[in-house]
This record gives sequence, structure tokens and C-alpha cells, in this order.
Amino acid sequence: MKPDSIEQSKRQKSPKWRLIDGGVTAPDGYLAAGVSAGIKRKGLDLAVLFSSQPASAAAVFTLNQIQAAPVVLSRENLKISKGRARAVLINSGCANACTGKRGMQDSVLSIQCLASHLGVDSSRILVASTGVIGSFLPVPRVLKGIATAVSSLNSQGGTAAAQAIMTTDTREKAFAVEARIEGNTVRIGGIAKGAGMIHPNMATMLSAITTDARVAPGQLNKILRRVVERTFNCLTVDGDSSTNDTVFILANGASKAAVSDGRAAAFFEQGLEMLCEELAKSIARDGEGATKFVEVLVRGARDFDSARKVAKAIANSSLVKTALFGEEFNWGRILCAAGYSGVPFSPDRIALSLNGVPVYRDGSPVISTRKRAEKAMKAHDLLIEVDLSAGGRQARVWTCDLSHEYVDINGSYIT
Amino acid sequence: MKPDSIEQSKRQKSPKWRLIDGGVTAPDGYLAAGVSAGIKRKGLDLAVLFSSQPASAAAVFTLNQIQAAPVVLSRENLKISKGRARAVLINSGCANACTGKRGMQDSVLSIQCLASHLGVDSSRILVASTGVIGSFLPVPRVLKGIATAVSSLNSQGGTAAAQAIMTTDTREKAFAVEARIEGNTVRIGGIAKGAGMIHPNMATMLSAITTDARVAPGQLNKILRRVVERTFNCLTVDGDSSTNDTVFILANGASKAAVSDGRAAAFFEQGLEMLCEELAKSIARDGEGATKFVEVLVRGARDFDSARKVAKAIANSSLVKTALFGEEFNWGRILCAAGYSGVPFSPDRIALSLNGVPVYRDGSPVISTRKRAEKAMKAHDLLIEVDLSAGGRQARVWTCDLSHEYVDINGSYIT
Repeated sequence: MKPDSIEQSKRQKSPKWRLIDGGVTAPDGYLAAGVSAGIKRKGLDLAVLFSSQPASAAAVFTLNQIQAAPVVLSRENLKISKGRARAVLINSGCANACTGKRGMQDSVLSIQCLASHLGVDSSRILVASTGVIGSFLPVPRVLKGIATAVSSLNSQGGTAAAQAIMTTDTREKAFAVEARIEGNTVRIGGIAKGAGMIHPNMATMLSAITTDARVAPGQLNKILRRVVERTFNCLTVDGDSSTNDTVFILANGASKAAVSDGRAAAFFEQGLEMLCEELAKSIARDGEGATKFVEVLVRGARDFDSARKVAKAIANSSLVKTALFGEEFNWGRILCAAGYSGVPFSPDRIALSLNGVPVYRDGSPVISTRKRAEKAMKAHDLLIEVDLSAGGRQARVWTCDLSHEYVDINGSYIT
Repeated sequence: MKPDSIEQSKRQKSPKWRLIDGGVTAPDGYLAAGVSAGIKRKGLDLAVLFSSQPASAAAVFTLNQIQAAPVVLSRENLKISKGRARAVLINSGCANACTGKRGMQDSVLSIQCLASHLGVDSSRILVASTGVIGSFLPVPRVLKGIATAVSSLNSQGGTAAAQAIMTTDTREKAFAVEARIEGNTVRIGGIAKGAGMIHPNMATMLSAITTDARVAPGQLNKILRRVVERTFNCLTVDGDSSTNDTVFILANGASKAAVSDGRAAAFFEQGLEMLCEELAKSIARDGEGATKFVEVLVRGARDFDSARKVAKAIANSSLVKTALFGEEFNWGRILCAAGYSGVPFSPDRIALSLNGVPVYRDGSPVISTRKRAEKAMKAHDLLIEVDLSAGGRQARVWTCDLSHEYVDINGSYIT
């Protein structure tokens, strides 16, 4: 048997997830809409996502101590509903954070409005906001926008919803994956917004994920947390962690495929990870002002956490990021960042390579590869590999460079 | 008695430190020189500082795990000499970090060369390097430069020495303070280089300090550590901590004033803090591409460390720094950074003001002062004040904004 056919027979035996077109409306039983409510100066700014049948729901929220009103409200609703939801409301253009009691009232009013339009209890609505911190929601516009969005809900609305949650993103982020589980086609779809402030725990990113698999709330929650840890939490654009970060997932069971036993759950988790990795990478690719997509792979670590800590120190360094933007072969900054990450390693045993070209090992620079390494810096996609020689675990972190445009975007975000 | 004269009588009673002209050669018994050795493409790049009599010495070094050869060597020498030194050798243009055994040999050779020119034991030489990581010292040039520097040592050489340690600094940093201690005039002088990578523990900054007070090595070491904690360690330009950070202090006793009892030591510590604060602030003012000088003052904290942690989170945020560059009234980013600092506080009790104008309190934005606050953002010197309402301690951190020029400087540091 030739290698090819071995590969093929394996593929036939064990089911596989594959990327398909579409976002949150790719799975069965979901409608979505994105409308222009006038919260932003122009463009779509309000998204509604609706499950035609009751769904399990789970969420991961920012760890920032200052949490926006919608974060507080969604957490409460998940408690009241014991992990159930019917709809998600997301606006861009205003974070509704640091807005006190009035901000909370504004969010409550928004979900009550959506609940009454959809004919569901308001505890079944999850809500998220993104945009400028410290501004109040323009409530009359939001309420009008909700009415328009509900009337335009449709089974192809995932793209418009993805566009409506964008802030400084240059393109919408929507992916879906599909597989067969015991004779049933199951899909998981997701939309996300990112761009700046991505780190260390999903900062200023929002994502809404849907699936037509049937998953109990408790299990959905556990799976989501694990997957977020390995995907969205391995993402950094500028090291800031926001007041609004949220990942929602709804599972409505419309496919009839149940994720009940351990094997099915593990397989479902694979699919969710594949989807979230695509979303996370697309956020890094579209980082504010990004001219490079960078994967930092740290191997030879004692455990995943220390590998990720080193990778994040490198990925967050303004000095590393500006050198990548300038296509400078200033690799010392990468080792320097590893050195202050707080993770112990032996400087004489660490090894560094750039897009596969060895740059540093055995305590000294590799001189012979210098020209090749300098050339490797010119690529758009960069792989920074660090081997700590301290164990067998690894982690990957995705980021982008730090450019003039980043400064432009963030020096005039409001104006 | 009027308030003015009360103030005046106080001033006459207790001695005070005052700023005077000069740097490391302001105290008695020090010679210095700065020469062009050809390590950098142009300009002065090698400094020698010499005490005409034996001096106590102490140092604080980077906490980065990857430590440059000169850091390792200086630490060793201070051990061998039991806190004594005669001279300091500093070069810019090459950090001699990540350079393995060859790098260590190069540093050893440099101090042996200086020791033989000065006729002192090589264990009495302290050495520091700053510049690109991963490049080797051009040893023949360094040795020739040392000979030139030694022959041009003079009692006015502090300014040239300050210029010779600059990398991306736009101006030299040299200050001195003077006071009378029991009838003797005592001086403390210092030079520093900074610009980028300043944080969290003196990153990519070097400083050499001299005094003609007589202080025992052990006491000098303790005082230096405390002062660095409150001055250089309250400084951040881009959050990176380098492989080479070093602060040296030499105390040669030429003034005959002895810092022996507790009161004299406390007074000496005041002077050293005044000097180091001037040096630290001048580094922040001259941060790479800086268009603003920013002091972040966090009050109402449980202790100094948590106050400084919040202040550093704010001062290190790329989003805050780009907003300051753009003179944007995007104050939510300041609270957001406080929120992810890891220091617990109540979001409803935190208060924020910008150059004295209240912006946020009691869980809500202060609307009435908005125009004044927007105007305050235009000032060159900004004071960001945060009150955590969680205790009685405070900390100040100095930084600058993040500009286009920062990206330019760091995207083309080598080329």
C-alpha cells in the first residue's frame, strides 16, 4: 500500500472536520441580521442572532476587573437561564463600559426590546458591545435598530452580522466547519471581531459561535473554556485586555447529532478548536495596521502555560514588533523578551530560528545562516521558533507587527 | 510669623540638596572621558570614568535571565573586590549580549586593557555595554579607544562621557546635586542613557553615579537598591526589559564627609533619590519618538507595589500611549489598563483625573468637565492621576507617548 492510500483509508475510517463557507448561519436553525442603527458614523453596527429553537449556551468573558454592562448582564442571564439562550445582540461603535447605572439600564432596555420582538424571555438574550469606552449607548437608535434587525433576520444573515460587529477590522471574520457524526451532518459556525487590544485574555475581541449539535450546557461550558484557552487566548495584537471581551456559543441540537459520550465530545471539541483557530488567526492577520502575520512557536517547555508565557512575551514586545515591521534582523530582541518572560530556562541551551533558518544556538549566534535569515524576515508570514530545551511541551501564539498605521489608528480612534 | 518666613526658617535649619551643573565629574576626585572608538558609525561611543582614590562601589543589574557579558563580569568583580572599584568602562553601539564565550573573552580583554593603562587591578573595573544584541565587540577598536580615553581623562569629562553612552538618546543626561554635611560640601553626580526598552527593571538603561561622600560598600549597596526601586524602576518607555541594564555607584570619600550614622545615611539617600529622579525623568522625556512627558500617579493603594503595578499597566499600554500621542480624550483606555493590572479595586470607587481635571468618579464619567479635560490632553506634560480608594499608599511612574517616530526608530535600529 502506497503512503497516499494509507492516508486515504485513514480518512475514510475516522470522521474529519472540514472548513465550509458561512458563519453563524451555516448550522441548521439559526437566523441572523446585521443592520445600520446609526451608533457608528457609518456602516453596519448592530447584529442579532436568533436560534429557532431553545439552545444550550455558554460564554467566556474578559478577566479585566472593569467589566462593561453587557458583560455583567450576559453573565447574569446565563445564571438565571441555567445555560440556555435563544438570541444574541451585539453592537459596535460603543462599548458601554465605565458607564455606571445608566449604562446598565441601557443594556437592560436593549435586551428587553429584543426579547419582546422575538417573543422570548429577556433572560434568554445574551448581549455584547464593542467600541469606545466611557460613551453611553444612543438608546433610541439602538431600539430602532433592533426592530429593523429582527424584521430582516434570515438564514443567510451570518455575513451581515459579522460585518456589523466590526470596529477597526478591515474585513469580516466568519468561518464554519462541518462533519458527519453517526450519520448526521453537524456544523459549527462563528463570527468574530478583533483588530486591536487582543491579549491576554481575548481583549477587545468578540465572538459568537453557533452549532446544530446537541450539547448539554455544562459540557458546552467546559469544552468552550478549554478551546478558548488554546485559541483566542493565544492571540495578541497589542497586549491590552479590554472591558468587553466575550465569546458566546449556542448549541440548538437541530442536526439531531448529540454530543453525549466522551468520544463524541472529544470530536466536537476538535471541530470547535479548528473553527476558533481560524477565527483567532484571522484576527491576528487583520491586527490594526498589520503588515505581517506572525506565529510564535515555543517548544521544549515544562508545560503549556510556561510555553505560552514565553511566546506571549515575544509576541507582545513593541521592540520585536517594530523590528518585524521594519524587516530588521534584530533577533536579539526576541531572546531578550524570552529572558524577561519570567519563565526559567538556560540561556546556553535556548535555540531560535526564523522561518526555519537557525539563528541562535549553544549560547552563540549562528553566523553561517545570517544571509538566509535576513532574507526570511522579508516574508509576509513569519514563524518565530524558540526551543527552551527544558521539557516536552509547546504553545503557539499568533500576532502581527507594530506599524505606523497602528499608531495612526489608535491615535485617532474617536476623532 | 507669615507662612513665607516659616518656610524660610525651616530651610535654614535643615540642610537641603540642590541641583548643580555637571555630571559624574562634579564630585571631587573623579576624571572622565568620552571618545569615538568607531564602534558606532559616528559619534562618541566609549566612556571611561576613573576615581583618583579607591572607592566603595555598588550596582543594580537587569533581572532579565539573558544577561550580557559585561553584566556577568561586573557582578563577579564586585564580589571579588568586596564592593570596591576604581574605574568604569562603558561602550555604546554594541550590547555584547547573546555572544557566548567569545563575548565574555572580549569583555575580559577590554577591562584588562583599561586596568593596565590605569595601573589598577582588573577586578577594580566595572563594565557595561549598550547597543545591538547579538553582535560582537570590535575588539581592536575598543582597545585603541580605551588608550585614547585614558590619555584624555580630565575633571571636566562628565559631559563627553554622558554623550559617549548614548544610543537612540537625542541628548545627553547628566545631573549633579550638592549639599553641606557637617561642614563639608558633598556632591553626587550621575550620567544615564535611556530612550527605548525602559521597563520594568531599568531596561536598556545604563547609569553611572559618583559621589565624594564616604560610604561603606554594604550601606552604599542598600541605599542604591532602595533608591533605584523608587526612581529608575518607576520608568517605562515600551515595557521591554533588556539584557544589559546597569546602575553603578562609586563613593570615594574625597569630600571627607562620612555617611556613617542613620541620620547622615538618610540625608545622603535623599540626595541620591533627587539625582536619580532627575535622571529617570530625563530618560522618559527623551523616550524614543516621545512628543509627551507623562507622569502616572496612582494614590489610594494598599501598598507601594500595587500602586506601581497599576501605574505601570497604564504607562505600558500601547493603546493609552497612542491615544496620548494623538491627543485623544480616550480615557476609557486608562481605566481599562488599571482593570487588567492584576491589582484588586472597586470599579465604582476608582477616580481618574487628567492634569487636575476630574474625568471619572463614582462609577460614571464626569460630563461637566469634558471640554476642559479634552483641552488638558493638548499639554506637553501630562499628569494622569488615579485614586483607587483602597488604602493610603501611592506611586509615580514616568513614561512618554507612542509615536510614529518610535516605530521608525525601532523598525530601522540596525540599518
